[in-house]
Amino acid sequence: MKKFLRNTLFLALSILLLVVVLGGYIPFAKATAQSSDPLPSWNDGPAKQAIVEFVKVTTDKSSPKFVPPKERIATFDQDGTLWVEHPIYTQVTYNIERVPALVKAKPELANVEPFKTVLSGNRQAMAKLSIDDLFKIVVATQSGMTPQAFSAEVNQWLATAKDPRWKRPYTELVYQPMQEVLKYLRANGYKTFIATGGSAGFVRAYSDRVYGIPPEQVAGTAQPYLYGYDKNQQPILTREPKVVLNNMEAGKLENFWLLYGHRPHAAFGNSSSDDQQMLEFTNAGEGARLSVAVLHDDAKREYAYGPAQGLPDTKVGTFSQAMYDMAKKQGWIVISMKNDWKQIFSFER
Amino acid sequence: MKKFLRNTLFLALSILLLVVVLGGYIPFAKATAQSSDPLPSWNDGPAKQAIVEFVKVTTDKSSPKFVPPKERIATFDQDGTLWVEHPIYTQVTYNIERVPALVKAKPELANVEPFKTVLSGNRQAMAKLSIDDLFKIVVATQSGMTPQAFSAEVNQWLATAKDPRWKRPYTELVYQPMQEVLKYLRANGYKTFIATGGSAGFVRAYSDRVYGIPPEQVAGTAQPYLYGYDKNQQPILTREPKVVLNNMEAGKLENFWLLYGHRPHAAFGNSSSDDQQMLEFTNAGEGARLSVAVLHDDAKREYAYGPAQGLPDTKVGTFSQAMYDMAKKQGWIVISMKNDWKQIFSFER
Repeated sequence: MKKFLRNTLFLALSILLLVVVLGGYIPFAKATAQSSDPLPSWNDGPAKQAIVEFVKVTTDKSSPKFVPPKERIATFDQDGTLWVEHPIYTQVTYNIERVPALVKAKPELANVEPFKTVLSGNRQAMAKLSIDDLFKIVVATQSGMTPQAFSAEVNQWLATAKDPRWKRPYTELVYQPMQEVLKYLRANGYKTFIATGGSAGFVRAYSDRVYGIPPEQVAGTAQPYLYGYDKNQQPILTREPKVVLNNMEAGKLENFWLLYGHRPHAAFGNSSSDDQQMLEFTNAGEGARLSVAVLHDDAKREYAYGPAQGLPDTKVGTFSQAMYDMAKKQGWIVISMKNDWKQIFSFER
Repeated sequence: MKKFLRNTLFLALSILLLVVVLGGYIPFAKATAQSSDPLPSWNDGPAKQAIVEFVKVTTDKSSPKFVPPKERIATFDQDGTLWVEHPIYTQVTYNIERVPALVKAKPELANVEPFKTVLSGNRQAMAKLSIDDLFKIVVATQSGMTPQAFSAEVNQWLATAKDPRWKRPYTELVYQPMQEVLKYLRANGYKTFIATGGSAGFVRAYSDRVYGIPPEQVAGTAQPYLYGYDKNQQPILTREPKVVLNNMEAGKLENFWLLYGHRPHAAFGNSSSDDQQMLEFTNAGEGARLSVAVLHDDAKREYAYGPAQGLPDTKVGTFSQAMYDMAKKQGWIVISMKNDWKQIFSFER
């Protein structure tokens, strides 16, 4: 009986250890996670398939399209690609709300365009402001402070400001399917970057919290910084009232190389005004490349705009017919929000 | 006997499994590596102690000076900090060797300074060229090609060019003690960056291979890129003949924030011309900060230069008296190459 007990004990111990060892060597949990759908908010279709296929072939060492981890660079436009940009860019809403205080400090701006239009409160007129006008407002309202103070202001605003349609903070208006793509790429060794036509300093204030992208991986239109000293003789940087890097049109990819020295292997965008060249350049690279353009064709759940669908040409994030033709000719992936996205926002759950 | 065998077998199996399990859970190898000296090329002294102490307090969660992994940013100047800069910057040697071909293509430059001085072959006159003159040579010889072609040219040159004193490739003239610091910081969750007054495009050609620092973490003086199409209508970038980001003096830290949105927690430099403000700004940050300046005081094993030691004020990487006074006043760490470095180059072994 004693021997039987000992045998049983040894057996139990052996089984226990075996389970522990196997548990360590066979990653059950991991295998389960991998076999589950990494993109649950996507409908099955060509867009989802293309993204999954791209990740598979670029991370499989036996694939001729394998991309070494150090070259796994993916870029994402923000407005209209990661979050809602219509009817007006979120950043511009922020800037516009700062104009009254600006004019109070500099009364001479009250009768100068584009500030005059902003002060009029006419939203339709504001929506028609040119990119140059928007840049003037951006630069005027984002200068003269330290980058830390600017970042704090942006976060303070984001904590209370709400989108008029959804009545939710702007940071909740991020596209759930794209959040899944960001995580999926990172889980497969990709370094994810934001390449925005918007202001780098603005997006960096919340990029890590909202997208899991740290400030050093956010490239945008940029105002220069000036080194100096504050009242207490402490060294500080101050945001200067000019633009040193303009990320519109080809500027986005020119500056991406300037900052990081890479051609991305994957690029996501939606607009002719600041994504077309980036998507073209990405697509033209050697080996596996993925250029993806988001088409806003879902008037019910989000918005529908852009000449590529015979819809009105808006000033904001227009997906032009020329870009659509280029996409088809060069074999980019075009995402139909209406058809490809099962769910658009996380709060729809 | 059968039972005895079975018992023995169970016992053996249990012990084997126990060893395997413990082998997996107690990282013997890791523990050994951690207890060994991470900076073997350093003599014990205040500089080494300060670096080790900084890493300890910023990575220990119970320390009031703990720095979250996302904020662990360390910057390194290249010339005179990571590799030899005396008597002339390696990059400038590269640029100077390109001048004859440049003048052949553009004969009108033959009688224009600084190209005239370069063509004269007078090394002493060349060593006296101003930073502005050097910039003119850099820009003239690093323009008109794609970044990929430029990178290939640089690597081709580095594969054969040799330093006249050591008769070795320039990439072997990196300081072994600093390589150890780079690895030590990375092993402790720090992201290491190069912040150089030199050309970003030049350093990115070899930064990963030589320092383990990828191109996206190399900030330098930068020429802009222009998007266009080659003969085959393929989209390309071309290096433009001007400077968009000047990384000299305060420019280095202004541009570091522009590119990455961070104040480093640790900065390493050596020169009044492009490190002083970065070291001052780093040191002035909240919490644990480490500003380190390399003093070239080893005429025998490397070079000795700089007014801070009563040595001649050279144009290259001068550690001025003003910077030395600032270092002492603000409590930076000053590395004496002569006293703090047991070994300077890896080939000395």
